[in-house]
Amino acid sequence: MAVLDFWYEFASTYSYPAAMKIGESAARRGVAVRWRPFLLGPIFAAQGWSTSPFNLYPAKGRYMWRDMERICAAEGLALNRPDPFPQNSLLAARLTLALDEGARPAFSRAVYEAEFAEGRAIDDPATHSAILARLGHDAPAASVRATEAPVKDALRANVAEAQARGIFGAPSFTTTGGELFWGFDRMEAALDWALRER
Amino acid sequence: MAVLDFWYEFASTYSYPAAMKIGESAARRGVAVRWRPFLLGPIFAAQGWSTSPFNLYPAKGRYMWRDMERICAAEGLALNRPDPFPQNSLLAARLTLALDEGARPAFSRAVYEAEFAEGRAIDDPATHSAILARLGHDAPAASVRATEAPVKDALRANVAEAQARGIFGAPSFTTTGGELFWGFDRMEAALDWALRER
Repeated sequence: MAVLDFWYEFASTYSYPAAMKIGESAARRGVAVRWRPFLLGPIFAAQGWSTSPFNLYPAKGRYMWRDMERICAAEGLALNRPDPFPQNSLLAARLTLALDEGARPAFSRAVYEAEFAEGRAIDDPATHSAILARLGHDAPAASVRATEAPVKDALRANVAEAQARGIFGAPSFTTTGGELFWGFDRMEAALDWALRER
Repeated sequence: MAVLDFWYEFASTYSYPAAMKIGESAARRGVAVRWRPFLLGPIFAAQGWSTSPFNLYPAKGRYMWRDMERICAAEGLALNRPDPFPQNSLLAARLTLALDEGARPAFSRAVYEAEFAEGRAIDDPATHSAILARLGHDAPAASVRATEAPVKDALRANVAEAQARGIFGAPSFTTTGGELFWGFDRMEAALDWALRER
């Protein structure tokens, strides 16, 4: 089966429609998706950025929010700007990796909805406890695992692998053959490429 | 008739496939395109950049060239990297504005082909003289007009208008209703939007 790695950052706006839509697009083609949460913070810091480029470059930021409005309207997704933007995504990424691989997509989608559809804070443990409980997980146990070395190491490894693969933004997609695609607008092309590589 | 303004920068890689394809895409929909050459240099300088972000951020630059290879292959366009990159695009932009509006698309496409398909220098007047002559223009006369105040002022006005419209990269597209789209991958969406606004 063709496989595509989906690299997403919970603070990233364009990762939201990607996370909400990649499942159905991939299923339609018969492509398996590996959900790879990572952090852009260390990658941005390495190139001298202390916050999102959408904050550093206001014209780009204004465009991005309008573009997100258009995309979300076209995709049937609600959009409410989280405040502050970007949100601190460390807890969300660790909690994702504290869950079994099969549980990560649904949890990740629920976090994106909380953040970008409902405008809730994703650095607030209460946001995640509610989601975890709703999805049938043991929220306290997952929260403990999220603070332990195996999860922290797994997230660090994802960031290191993202950087090694040349990833500089989110969402990104990598094929087993090493092709990199960046942006929600490249998701379909990435899935097609993965299929052709098989 | 629906109208879309097409903002392009001769040094910009993604402006190349846009320039080569927008004519047929727009004609298919019955959208009129206004070709608006401008310069990104002053806009980049205003946000502290002295060269292309693809040079400032190497991971982004490596990705862009690979992405361009894929796009050009898919669109049936040749691709040869100009050296140096980015090219100085001032002469090309002024020469475009020295021509009648109706002659600008064909001249612009020829310049992009020289630059990105053949890897020729677009700061070299000889490159342009050959193109102008081939397209049936009076090359010496156009070259003189390109150095005169009306053309210089027209280019400055385009840059100022681009900035006022929130443009921060190329290619960009603006509708009469004020919608801004950025990137070759948004060209079809921009044309569709222009059509819906009519």
